[in-house]
Amino acid sequence: MTKRIIIVGAVALGPKVACRLRRLDPQADITVIDRDNLISYGGCGIPYYVGGDIADIEGLYSTSSHAIRDPEFFKTCKGIQIIPRVEAIGIDRKERKLEIQYLDDGRKEALAYDKLVIATGATPFRPPIPGADLPRVFTVSNLHSAKDIKDILAKGQVGKAVVIGAGAIGIEMAEALTDLWGVDTTIIEMADQVLPAALGKHVSKIAENQLEKNGVKVMLSQRVLQINGSPASGVTSVETSVDTAEGVLDCDLVVMSAGVRPNTQFAAEAGLAVGSSGALLVDRCMRTTDPHIYAGGDCVELRNLVSGENMTMPLGSLANRQGRIIANNIHGRASQFKGTVGTFCIKIFDMGIATAGLTATQAKANGFDPIHAIVAQHDRAHFYPDSRMMFITLIADAKTRKILGIEAVGNQGDAIKARVDAIAPLFQTGLNVDDVCVLETGYAPPYASAMDIINNAGNALDNILEKQNIPIDVMEFIEQFKAKETRVLDVRDAIEAAPFIERYKDRWISIPQPELRDRIAEVPKDTLLCLLCGTGARSYESQIILTQNGFTNTKNIQGGYAVLAAVAPEFTF
Amino acid sequence: MTKRIIIVGAVALGPKVACRLRRLDPQADITVIDRDNLISYGGCGIPYYVGGDIADIEGLYSTSSHAIRDPEFFKTCKGIQIIPRVEAIGIDRKERKLEIQYLDDGRKEALAYDKLVIATGATPFRPPIPGADLPRVFTVSNLHSAKDIKDILAKGQVGKAVVIGAGAIGIEMAEALTDLWGVDTTIIEMADQVLPAALGKHVSKIAENQLEKNGVKVMLSQRVLQINGSPASGVTSVETSVDTAEGVLDCDLVVMSAGVRPNTQFAAEAGLAVGSSGALLVDRCMRTTDPHIYAGGDCVELRNLVSGENMTMPLGSLANRQGRIIANNIHGRASQFKGTVGTFCIKIFDMGIATAGLTATQAKANGFDPIHAIVAQHDRAHFYPDSRMMFITLIADAKTRKILGIEAVGNQGDAIKARVDAIAPLFQTGLNVDDVCVLETGYAPPYASAMDIINNAGNALDNILEKQNIPIDVMEFIEQFKAKETRVLDVRDAIEAAPFIERYKDRWISIPQPELRDRIAEVPKDTLLCLLCGTGARSYESQIILTQNGFTNTKNIQGGYAVLAAVAPEFTF
Repeated sequence: MTKRIIIVGAVALGPKVACRLRRLDPQADITVIDRDNLISYGGCGIPYYVGGDIADIEGLYSTSSHAIRDPEFFKTCKGIQIIPRVEAIGIDRKERKLEIQYLDDGRKEALAYDKLVIATGATPFRPPIPGADLPRVFTVSNLHSAKDIKDILAKGQVGKAVVIGAGAIGIEMAEALTDLWGVDTTIIEMADQVLPAALGKHVSKIAENQLEKNGVKVMLSQRVLQINGSPASGVTSVETSVDTAEGVLDCDLVVMSAGVRPNTQFAAEAGLAVGSSGALLVDRCMRTTDPHIYAGGDCVELRNLVSGENMTMPLGSLANRQGRIIANNIHGRASQFKGTVGTFCIKIFDMGIATAGLTATQAKANGFDPIHAIVAQHDRAHFYPDSRMMFITLIADAKTRKILGIEAVGNQGDAIKARVDAIAPLFQTGLNVDDVCVLETGYAPPYASAMDIINNAGNALDNILEKQNIPIDVMEFIEQFKAKETRVLDVRDAIEAAPFIERYKDRWISIPQPELRDRIAEVPKDTLLCLLCGTGARSYESQIILTQNGFTNTKNIQGGYAVLAAVAPEFTF
Repeated sequence: MTKRIIIVGAVALGPKVACRLRRLDPQADITVIDRDNLISYGGCGIPYYVGGDIADIEGLYSTSSHAIRDPEFFKTCKGIQIIPRVEAIGIDRKERKLEIQYLDDGRKEALAYDKLVIATGATPFRPPIPGADLPRVFTVSNLHSAKDIKDILAKGQVGKAVVIGAGAIGIEMAEALTDLWGVDTTIIEMADQVLPAALGKHVSKIAENQLEKNGVKVMLSQRVLQINGSPASGVTSVETSVDTAEGVLDCDLVVMSAGVRPNTQFAAEAGLAVGSSGALLVDRCMRTTDPHIYAGGDCVELRNLVSGENMTMPLGSLANRQGRIIANNIHGRASQFKGTVGTFCIKIFDMGIATAGLTATQAKANGFDPIHAIVAQHDRAHFYPDSRMMFITLIADAKTRKILGIEAVGNQGDAIKARVDAIAPLFQTGLNVDDVCVLETGYAPPYASAMDIINNAGNALDNILEKQNIPIDVMEFIEQFKAKETRVLDVRDAIEAAPFIERYKDRWISIPQPELRDRIAEVPKDTLLCLLCGTGARSYESQIILTQNGFTNTKNIQGGYAVLAAVAPEFTF
C-alpha cells in the first residue's frame, strides 16, 4: 500500500525528510506544504545577504550547483510535490487528517496521512512594545523581511539603527549593518552581557569589546520601552530604560532579535504534548506523543546531553541531521537522534567564537558544582608566523571532574571551531578533566602547539582542582584591584611591568619570574597578591614557588595579561 | 626521603616530566641529561626554520615569552638541573644506577636513581646507500643539521636537491627548499604514493599533485642506489633505480628522511622489553617492564586504539602529553595514557591534510573489512564568499559499522584539522557510521554548511553500506574508463559536459539530472555506466532514480568531478 506522508514546512528539515524518503521509497505519496512561497532557504545566511557577503537573495535558496530550490526543482530533481502558500490549521488525529487552508483564496481542505511530519520551525518573537508595528521595525523572520531590510539600506535611507537583543541574530545583523552599510548601530540587551544563552562573562566581554571596537554600540541591562515614529515616516527613535537624554536613540531602522517562538499552536491544539518552551516533545526517534506524527527542527525540544534537561536549539544544522532520522524511521529503519550538547559558533567581524555544553551559570542552575579554567595560548606553534592568541574557558563539575562546557574565542575562526568540535562530541561519553589533558588532536606547527590549548586548559583545570593552582578570574581581579583589596606581582620582564608601576605605584610590584627564587624576600606576605604574566603560565610557576616557600596570599590571574587586555582594554598601554 | 629522579633526554618529554615533577615536589632531586648542548627545542619546527617562516634558530628553543630554553633557563625558571653533552651508556637495574659518559672528556660515572625516565627519542634512519656519508647529505636530526642545511642554502650553494622519503619530514623539507630558496627539488619514495603510512591512494594522489603543482618533482616506487660526489665537492648526483638517463639526478644537497629509529640500545641491553620496532614497551602508566623505569615519546611503542596493535608515533604533541602522565605517576598519582588513534596533520604549500585511524590498507592488514566513502563539499556554507572545496575519505568496518579512519584535505588547513579532530577522539568510544551521520559540530555559515561534510561522509557511507549507493572510486573509474570498460553518464548541466563529449564522443553521455526522469529512455542499459556530477550528490540522486527504474548497470563516481579534477588534472579543461 502506498504510504501517504504529509510534511508541514518546507525549510531545512521538511525538504530533507521528503527527499530522503523519496530516495528510500519511490512509491510513497509525499506532499510538503508551506505557508510561504519562498521555500528551502538558508535562513542563517540572511545576515550575510544583508551585509553583502551574498550578493543576490537567490544565493540563499540555490544548491551548490546553482539550481534554484523552488517547487519545480523539487518536482523534477527530487520527485517531491511542494505546495506553497498553504497553512496547517488543525489535525484530526483520530481520522489522521491534516486540516489546511490555502492562503491565497481562503479555501480549506483535509488531507489524509499515514505519517505526518511537523517541520513548522519558529517565528521571531516580537516583544509587545508600543510602536512595534511601525514601518521599518523588522524581525529577521524570512526572505521577505530580509529583502525589505536590504532594499531600504540600498536606498540609503538608514543612517542609524537599533537592534533589540544581543543573541546571535542580533549580533550578526549589527555586523551586517555596520560593516557594509556604515550604519550607526546600537544593540540593546536586557541581560548584563551579550550572547547570554551561550557565553560566560569573560568570553562575552571579549565579544562585547569586539563589537564596540568595530563601531557597534552595546547597551546592556536595558530594555526598549517604546518605539516612536508614524506610519508615514516609519520609526524615528526608540526610548530605552535609560532615563537620561541618552536613553532616547534616534534611528531609521529597528531590528527585533529577541528570540524565537516555536510554531506549534495547531499541533498543541490537537493534543500533542509540548514542553515549557511551547515546542513539541519528541522521543529519540523524533516521534511526538502521537506515534503517527513526527516533528523536528526549531519546533521541538531536544535533550541537552550535558544537563539531561530539555532545551530548544534552533539551528539549521540540527534540523538537517534530524530530517534524515525522521525519514529513516518513517521508512521503518530505526534511527535515533539522542539530543544536543548545544554546540554553537558565530563570527563577529574578524573574530570567531565557539561554545558547547553549559555556561557556569547554567551548570549551577542545573545542580552541578562548576569550576573553570581560563587559558590563553597561540593557535599555532608560538614560533609560527601567523599565530594568533586564543582564549578558552573550560568548565567541569568539581565533584565528578566531568566536563560541562567549553567556550573559545580568537581571530582565526576555523581554529576556534576546531578546538570546540574536538571535545564537544565527547561530552556525552562522560569526558572528564583527565581525558582532556591527554586529548589527541592534530599537530603540526602551522596548526597547533605541541601541547595544544585544549590540553593546557585540561591541565590548568586539573591543577585548580588539585589546589596546585589558586586562580582568580580577570574580572574578579579587576574588581578587587579597583577596590584596592589586592596588589599585583608582575612576573613578566621588568620592561613590560614598567608602565604599570608608573601608573599604579607600589600597588604593582615587578619581579621577573627567573629572578623570583633569588628575590623571594622582597615578596610581601601580608596582603593579597595577584600574580600576572603574559598568559598565566609563568605566574602559575611563580605561585608554585611562592607556595612551596610558605606564601599563602597569592592568586594567579587566569590567562594573564592576554586575557586582561582582551577583557579590559583600559589595562593596555 | 628525597626522591632521586634521573631523566635521559632533554627534548619535549624529558623537560616536561622534570618541570611538572618540580611543581609537584619541591624536594625531589631531579637531573636531566642530554647528549646534545642544544636542548628543549621544537624539532617539528625545523622545516619552517629552513624555509624561512622562522628567521632565527633561537625561535625553535625559545618560550612563547621569548626566553631561551637553555640549562640556565631551566635552573632559574624551573628549578631543574640539566647536564648537556652527557650520554647514557648503561643501566644497572639491580643497583638502580644509570651509567653515563661525558662526551667532552670521556669521563664515565654512575648516577643512582629511585626512578629513571627514558626520553631519548629517535634518530633519523640513514639508509646504507653508498655515498650516504658524503658532505651535504643530511638527515633532519637536530638543530645542528638544521643550521648546516640553512647555512649552505643561504650561501647560494644549492641549485638542485634530492629528498629521500616522502613522509612528513621529507615533504615539509621539500616545500622549504622549493618555496623560499627556489631549489629544484625531487622527492624519491620507495612506496607507490606519498605519505604511505598516513594516507589512502586518493588523498595521497591529491597531495602528490599539490607538490608537483608547486614545483616539487615526485618519483614514486623508486630507490636511491648510490650517492655520487667527493669529500671535497660534496654530493654531486644520486643514482636511482630508474635505469635510464633520467634516473641520475644532479644535485648539491641530499636530505634523507626515511623514517626514524628509537634510541633504545642502552635500555634494551639492560633487559627492558622492546617491541618489533625496537621501541620500548610501556604500560598505560608509561612504565617499562622495570617498574622503576618510565619511558615516553619517540622511543616507546603506543597502543593504536583502533587496531589494538602497538605502533610508534613520533610526535612532539604525544610526547608532551605523556610527560605530564609520567610525572604524575612518579609523584604517586595514578595517571594513564591509553594510546593513540594516530592523528596526523601536515601543511603542503597552501593545502592542509589531516588524518586519523587506519587507512583502508592498514585496516585490511589488521583483519577488518574496510569500506569507505569519498565526499567533496565546501568548508563553509556554499553561498559564503571564501568557501573552498574539501575532500574526506571516511573508512568503516563493513561488519560492525565502526569507524576505522578518516582522511581530509583542502585549502583551509584549520578547517581540515577541525573535521578530523571532531571525530578522531571518538574512535576509542566505538564510534559507528550512524553516530557520524548525526555528529554535532559547530555551525554558522562562515565556518560550515548546515549539513557538514562530516555528516555527509557518514550519510554517504551509510548509503553505501545499505546498498543505496553503488560507488566507484575515481582512480578505479579512470582505469576502467581508459580500458574502455565503462561509459560516463554526466548529469551536470549540458554546458559542463560539452567539452568532455567533444573529447570522448559517445563514451560520454550528457543528461542533466533534472531531465533524467523524462529522458530515462535514452539511458543505455547494456554497458557499465559511471555517473558523474559536481561532487557526487546529484549523481547519487540519479543513481537512485535509475535503480528505482530497474537499471543495474550504474556506478556513482565518489566525490564527482571535484575529486576527479583533484586526483587527475588531465580530466580538466
